[in-house]
Amino acid sequence: MERDVEIVEVGPRDGLQTESVQLSTATKVELIRKLEAAGARRVEVASFVNPKVVPQMADAEALLAALPRSDTTRIGLVLNERGAQRALAAGIGQLGLVCAASDAFGLKNQGKTGEQSLEMALRLLALARHEGRPAQVTISVAFGCPYSGDVPHDRVVEYARRLADGGPAEIALADTIGVAAPGEVERLVRRVIEAIRPLPIRVHFHDTRATGIANVWAAYGAGARSFDASIGGLGGCPFAPGAAGNVATGDVGYMFERSRIRTGLDLAQLGEVAGWLRKRVRTQE
Amino acid sequence: MERDVEIVEVGPRDGLQTESVQLSTATKVELIRKLEAAGARRVEVASFVNPKVVPQMADAEALLAALPRSDTTRIGLVLNERGAQRALAAGIGQLGLVCAASDAFGLKNQGKTGEQSLEMALRLLALARHEGRPAQVTISVAFGCPYSGDVPHDRVVEYARRLADGGPAEIALADTIGVAAPGEVERLVRRVIEAIRPLPIRVHFHDTRATGIANVWAAYGAGARSFDASIGGLGGCPFAPGAAGNVATGDVGYMFERSRIRTGLDLAQLGEVAGWLRKRVRTQE
Repeated sequence: MERDVEIVEVGPRDGLQTESVQLSTATKVELIRKLEAAGARRVEVASFVNPKVVPQMADAEALLAALPRSDTTRIGLVLNERGAQRALAAGIGQLGLVCAASDAFGLKNQGKTGEQSLEMALRLLALARHEGRPAQVTISVAFGCPYSGDVPHDRVVEYARRLADGGPAEIALADTIGVAAPGEVERLVRRVIEAIRPLPIRVHFHDTRATGIANVWAAYGAGARSFDASIGGLGGCPFAPGAAGNVATGDVGYMFERSRIRTGLDLAQLGEVAGWLRKRVRTQE
Repeated sequence: MERDVEIVEVGPRDGLQTESVQLSTATKVELIRKLEAAGARRVEVASFVNPKVVPQMADAEALLAALPRSDTTRIGLVLNERGAQRALAAGIGQLGLVCAASDAFGLKNQGKTGEQSLEMALRLLALARHEGRPAQVTISVAFGCPYSGDVPHDRVVEYARRLADGGPAEIALADTIGVAAPGEVERLVRRVIEAIRPLPIRVHFHDTRATGIANVWAAYGAGARSFDASIGGLGGCPFAPGAAGNVATGDVGYMFERSRIRTGLDLAQLGEVAGWLRKRVRTQE
């Protein structure tokens, strides 16, 4: 299918991570296969982090082993060398790294200041390159921090430029707590595109204050062509107070398709997957 | 207060009209005063229609009589001569007229084809001019009809041009059932602005498919500076199956203010009004 934009499905990781229900590995496999059948070409499937902290993701290795091969790309989130080694050993298709735009959030989420999380991301990029596996970096709280408030655009642009030098496949800006509004999205996305070109940008929005879909549109207008979304709008971040769900894949898809911008997604099929998943997340398996 | 955009508050009419709870006239007066105190300069307060069809608006005259004078503009929706005469006699500040962009919707909502509803709006514009009272026209289902589907942009542009010749204060485009996406919003808003200039345009979006706020942003980008919104996101249309609430005033305000576009609204105060209203709409008085 032709597509003008890429919607990266983050439901199985960012979505499920914050749900109180623990899905079985088999159900996760079924979910990922359904999403790929509905047109997703890139899916964030797991995080390789401490299972005591994020028990929903404790089965990362088992999930990777159970997933049938496909020509799609599966992303695994990692925060340190141990996670990266686990993900690489499990045969992950793409490493998802994180760099915090604020010290306060970095310390809470990764135990690192912004600068330390950037250095870690650069080390992991070098590791991935050494192993011949693609990796991308997401700059979290790029539009605002739940602990320290506003995040200077200059710092985000500087981090993006330094990360770009580490050779990632792309750099993403994440509105982890859903405070962004389209005016600033346009300004920051334009600046980061300028700073990292020809490297592509990806954006990640939450709908906490009902601006998520508007931010996707504003980022598109500013030149972004790759967008995270979560099936059924699940998700958030357990370490970010007040963070509500990701923008929903069906909503983002509807907005683009009706605007004559092709996503490559089958929206009717996605609607069925969302309904199927809702039953399993609301009611314990 | 300086403002770059105008947010027209439609909660007391479009919002309350679809709620099953009937607010007392005194509570409506309190709501409107609170909204004006929070910065609303134009409020749609009532509709002068058949009280058997829309019982929530049966107290239109009593409401107008009970409202203290102010320098804000109060809009009353009217669909025919009888309603216009009632609104004028009640001392309404601005008549809100409606022209349906599709025959199917016009017949269901007003008992008139699109063309007949346009002729009625032109007659009411002449009546308002004769009485020296300002009137504006909203083109309903401008982005899609629940009965007949897509509405040709050419027809909306033609209707807008013909209505503009009738001398309204402004022309609005309404996505009555909330199907619009930002791509088409940009295209149609640009065309209508071009067709009716120097007459101002207003836009009215519902959030049925999560695109409402993105559509507001897209319309702003296309040149619109006046936007309907409803306190707490109340509302819809009882005659439009599937129409969900209006975009919420607080969400639209947050999006603009954080984008450094001044609305003249006090968002904290608006949040309090929304909370106050929610209690009264959820629980019978």
